[in-house]
Amino acid sequence: MRIHEQHFRTIWQEANAVCLIDQTRLPFEFVTVTVKTLPEICHAIRSMQVRGAPLIGATAAYGVALGIQAVATDQQLNAVVKELIATRPTAVNLAWAATRMQQQLQALPVSARAALAWQMAAEIADEDVAQNLAIGQHGKVVIESKAGVNPQQVVNILTHCNAGWLATVDGGTALAPIYAAHDAGLKVHVWVDETRPRNQGASLTAWELAQHGVPHTVIADNAGGHLMQHGQVDMVIVGADRVSRHGDVCNKIGTYLKALAAFDQNVPFYAAVPTPTIDWQLARGADIDIEMRDADEVAYMQGQGKDGRLQQVRVIPHESQALNPAFDVTPARLVTGIITERGVFSPNQLTSLEPST
Amino acid sequence: MRIHEQHFRTIWQEANAVCLIDQTRLPFEFVTVTVKTLPEICHAIRSMQVRGAPLIGATAAYGVALGIQAVATDQQLNAVVKELIATRPTAVNLAWAATRMQQQLQALPVSARAALAWQMAAEIADEDVAQNLAIGQHGKVVIESKAGVNPQQVVNILTHCNAGWLATVDGGTALAPIYAAHDAGLKVHVWVDETRPRNQGASLTAWELAQHGVPHTVIADNAGGHLMQHGQVDMVIVGADRVSRHGDVCNKIGTYLKALAAFDQNVPFYAAVPTPTIDWQLARGADIDIEMRDADEVAYMQGQGKDGRLQQVRVIPHESQALNPAFDVTPARLVTGIITERGVFSPNQLTSLEPST
Repeated sequence: MRIHEQHFRTIWQEANAVCLIDQTRLPFEFVTVTVKTLPEICHAIRSMQVRGAPLIGATAAYGVALGIQAVATDQQLNAVVKELIATRPTAVNLAWAATRMQQQLQALPVSARAALAWQMAAEIADEDVAQNLAIGQHGKVVIESKAGVNPQQVVNILTHCNAGWLATVDGGTALAPIYAAHDAGLKVHVWVDETRPRNQGASLTAWELAQHGVPHTVIADNAGGHLMQHGQVDMVIVGADRVSRHGDVCNKIGTYLKALAAFDQNVPFYAAVPTPTIDWQLARGADIDIEMRDADEVAYMQGQGKDGRLQQVRVIPHESQALNPAFDVTPARLVTGIITERGVFSPNQLTSLEPST
Repeated sequence: MRIHEQHFRTIWQEANAVCLIDQTRLPFEFVTVTVKTLPEICHAIRSMQVRGAPLIGATAAYGVALGIQAVATDQQLNAVVKELIATRPTAVNLAWAATRMQQQLQALPVSARAALAWQMAAEIADEDVAQNLAIGQHGKVVIESKAGVNPQQVVNILTHCNAGWLATVDGGTALAPIYAAHDAGLKVHVWVDETRPRNQGASLTAWELAQHGVPHTVIADNAGGHLMQHGQVDMVIVGADRVSRHGDVCNKIGTYLKALAAFDQNVPFYAAVPTPTIDWQLARGADIDIEMRDADEVAYMQGQGKDGRLQQVRVIPHESQALNPAFDVTPARLVTGIITERGVFSPNQLTSLEPST
């Protein structure tokens, strides 16, 4: 990830601590945080200093490593994993990464666990980076086919929320094909959904696209349908927090609305995810338990005040309540394809990827 | 309109001036403004101190009255009407009201025009109020039919933007049926779309529903589809800035997305409008010239700071651009019915209302 022309990952180890970028302060302040305890890393996940399914997975892995540094018994390991999984119920990668750490560590002598846990967490982080590079290459082919015979034709891609560098350890999922296409010299322009209530699009996606020099325009979440009606969107690429075995896509609230508009206007709609995001146990996306987050995320908005400092303003009357469902489920019938590190698959081809048990 | 238990209209005459509520300062500050010149009233329309199709129409009527107080020649009258119409290109009521004033005044001796113009503007305002009461009564029947045999069953209604009291002289359009149902003792609950970028839902609709004591919950614009998927929306009622002769609905950006979700989930979708909002010259809504507003409406958000004062915060990176289309068009195929002062009509019945020429 290129930040002020320097290379960063979103999470890394330093001695017996974990360093991460505090994403709640972007795009106006770039701050890294050093986390030394399990409660601190749980707080980082819950407060969304780190967010994005793959990054949450890697954070959980580093969280397991942190949590067993002093005591590495099975009992401690189980407690740590349980506490981490409870921080964000919708994130399948979190459970996947924490459980993988648990299984690998349980197979080791207690005395060896603390040191090797760091290595296992780093493996999960490295795998994420490699997967995202592969997603980028497969997705680039989809963008190339839209550009057609003229590589100088601008391909307009709409994305929702942030499934970029900042949502992963590095490279991004939904944005990986965009970076790959841009770096290969194709002309891409990204419509960035603001993504209320937490504005991950306006504050994170726009910021990282700007850092990398990719042309983009921020729009209100309301505007995408209109742009599609007027032929200004060539494709939609989003990330996902969970994908069902038949291709229902659980992603940031509002994704379903964009998928409906894309379907109505014959605009291809893709979700780009590493295969661990596919929940093989989940037959129907509609069965996912949707996380309800704090209503204050709707009632307040954070931005940069005239004095240059971050501040929150209240945007609903003091007499009013708000509700804040964090995700919605886009049914597979609206999904053109799932871009994975193993290739691009239509929803009904997805089960061909299922690991044999 | 009940504000702090006192009755208000959104616009009224005092001596040779026009008074209005500065809606850009709601919901945290209730401020009335006295306007004495044509440029001031044009500014009030452009800066959205007044907004909402019917209120813009009444404001234009009062604007014509203001603009001819000193000089009332045909030439002056034509110039005033032209200047008013240019303030908001999408608003058909604005052109309708200004043109009606022009035609009625042209038929009078120049010396009689200044005094009678106030009376004509008041007639347009009074007609708006009467129309909205009638819309409320017709729409109440639709809500009653959803409540079914049990009048204590809560009917959940989603609305977008503000088509309430504050969008009209009094009474509201989309909210008129809700007020009528609530006042008749039916249980209604309103899902209020925040309505970025200008937040008319969160700041105006929520505020006026709270003033009137109607149960409501503010949601991000992204959330409506999810709520419909989960059976939590019984109907959608929105206003409109313009309706085509065959029932295409031009309304605040984002309406199309909600209409798609309503159609997908078998939730009835209504637009509530006075018949002057129907543009009989317009065959296809897709032909409407959509107003592009200032990108800063997307880049900044206004709210109440910790010190209690209104302030703006920037919500997109300084390196990023934004685009701000103000309206979209919901095709008639997604519209269950148009609620008017003359009854409820399906889109294909609408031409039965067309005035004979």
